[in-house]
Amino acid sequence: MSDTGLPSGQPARAGESAITRPQVIAVDAMGGDNAPDAIVAGAVSAFRQWGTRIVLIGRPGQVRPLLAKHGVLGQIRLVTAEDTVAMAEGALASWRRPRSSIAVACQLVHLGHATGVMSAGSTGAIVAIARLRLRNLPGVLRPALAVVLPTHPNPTVLIDAGAIADPKPEMLAQFAQFGSAYAEVALGAVQPKVGLLSIGAEPGKGNKLARRTYELLSSEQAHGAMPINFAGNVEGGDLLAGKVDVIVAEGFTGNVALKTMEGTAAFTARQFRSALSSSRQARLGGLLARSELRQTLSRFDPETYGGAALLGLEGTVVIAHGAVSELGAASACRVASQMASGQIADRIKERLGPQRPGYFLRRT
Amino acid sequence: MSDTGLPSGQPARAGESAITRPQVIAVDAMGGDNAPDAIVAGAVSAFRQWGTRIVLIGRPGQVRPLLAKHGVLGQIRLVTAEDTVAMAEGALASWRRPRSSIAVACQLVHLGHATGVMSAGSTGAIVAIARLRLRNLPGVLRPALAVVLPTHPNPTVLIDAGAIADPKPEMLAQFAQFGSAYAEVALGAVQPKVGLLSIGAEPGKGNKLARRTYELLSSEQAHGAMPINFAGNVEGGDLLAGKVDVIVAEGFTGNVALKTMEGTAAFTARQFRSALSSSRQARLGGLLARSELRQTLSRFDPETYGGAALLGLEGTVVIAHGAVSELGAASACRVASQMASGQIADRIKERLGPQRPGYFLRRT
Repeated sequence: MSDTGLPSGQPARAGESAITRPQVIAVDAMGGDNAPDAIVAGAVSAFRQWGTRIVLIGRPGQVRPLLAKHGVLGQIRLVTAEDTVAMAEGALASWRRPRSSIAVACQLVHLGHATGVMSAGSTGAIVAIARLRLRNLPGVLRPALAVVLPTHPNPTVLIDAGAIADPKPEMLAQFAQFGSAYAEVALGAVQPKVGLLSIGAEPGKGNKLARRTYELLSSEQAHGAMPINFAGNVEGGDLLAGKVDVIVAEGFTGNVALKTMEGTAAFTARQFRSALSSSRQARLGGLLARSELRQTLSRFDPETYGGAALLGLEGTVVIAHGAVSELGAASACRVASQMASGQIADRIKERLGPQRPGYFLRRT
Repeated sequence: MSDTGLPSGQPARAGESAITRPQVIAVDAMGGDNAPDAIVAGAVSAFRQWGTRIVLIGRPGQVRPLLAKHGVLGQIRLVTAEDTVAMAEGALASWRRPRSSIAVACQLVHLGHATGVMSAGSTGAIVAIARLRLRNLPGVLRPALAVVLPTHPNPTVLIDAGAIADPKPEMLAQFAQFGSAYAEVALGAVQPKVGLLSIGAEPGKGNKLARRTYELLSSEQAHGAMPINFAGNVEGGDLLAGKVDVIVAEGFTGNVALKTMEGTAAFTARQFRSALSSSRQARLGGLLARSELRQTLSRFDPETYGGAALLGLEGTVVIAHGAVSELGAASACRVASQMASGQIADRIKERLGPQRPGYFLRRT
């Protein structure tokens, strides 16, 4: 790591506040369909526009010429990682590629050289690598993946979007705290309303996991140090209704719902577009309404509504969409930096409160 | 039941072919937001247009005047049921309302007076009542709810859309057989391709249930008497992609995905509509493309793409959308009749083959 110029650090102490550490974001230059070009361009843009402090991780042979092209050689640090994780690789990459750019990025956070990670690589691989390399925050059972849904006027956080398979109800209750912290720090929500994704509005609806989680979220006991503003069950149709600030879901169902939402929005948009080119008159109509329609379409562009955040770990991990462009990469760097400055980790610790052994499941 | 004029029958024997019995559809006149008016009108329309044989079940005081209005008094039979299940009632209605119109409709099938049921009432209540009143087909572990998704050019069957909570993998393997039979009988598919709803394309992806179900669907053993044409995992984004004829899902996730799809399509359509009225020019454009846009919107109207079918029971149960109109009610009656004529029950029995004790879980 001679390229970093960073002091060789001790692992950051878990109790240490994020604000006392420099908000450096470790950017995986090699992850994503348009890497490294779009990622480096985005990181440079975040550095220039908002002064985001960046460390790039990747192959010097590819990244250095890009830094030179943007005229920031020497201004943005570069850490060498010759190995990369392919977009098609999943969780096994955490074992197969111990020296990949994303593994090195996580290691920088673990050693205290950085406070957050940004990558546009394979979500499955990033989650697995981050879980292996980064410690859970004290008392956290499992980390969870949060995404911001494009609801209006207020965005809704969906958590867990697929980090954890077969979770326990106690984990979902913690995810409600993570999601609330995220809604407060990243979206400015006050006393965020939390809904539980199920298949009916009544408390008794859903499978065993949903029913037990409902009980936990309704009871004082499960709330950690700070109360959860629990608003009951929400259904699949409420995902975009903006009824609540946070939707807690079991990861499998959350992931299916998220992808169904993206797929349906894209399908509907395609249908409308083809309707608007099916006759001469419709084409003229589409032409007249062009700018309004384009604006609507952009709202469903995953790049516009941003990436996912892995919460519950000692560092903020932001996962941008694989097909991210310069603009999206820049905004993901900014989000990672904002979350680190907003002390999302401290906020989660505060919400969970001191660990109560015997109540929560053992941390694994 | 003196109103029926039906011979007092013995329960239909399970082995008896549907084709030897008259294809009479027991229509719950009292279920649905627009009941009994729209339901009776729809049933009359199915009777007139396609010769569908109908028995209406409901309050004579309300239904008889409607039959008189349509001029079919004496042509369409009426069975009395004074109790009804409200749209807000769930599974508990099966115990609370033993003499409801939907319970009586199921009883008619059980006694051999009808071969199918059509209701636009509360899905939860209908599923619970049908499970209580109708026998499972031989070897069937649990019935499942199938819906037809509006994919193009070929529709896709999603099964289970929410009938069974916390199923076992062996049940999902059976659902693949039900779905294949449904795709053959109702949609004319040949060797229907079956996908498993999960959170990644690879076999190892998903939670324990999905992984075990994948194994079962891939092995010869689980296929029953006829092979399943298993095409591997599909993701939420593939729901409308038309890649497969049947998508097998665990009921909780299947229900969330279905409602997410409906909610997102409605949300996207609303966004487009408001985009088309946001400026004078856009309004003019929308006006010019009006008929094409309306056609596109109708494709996502649950009423157009029809209701759900509860499969695996001794009689066909078709559940129309609660807000169903005359047109939708008529088409649901026709679907129920077609499924009964297409011998969906025989087709499922054939696919499952002789019961193999010890392999499948005990029937409950």
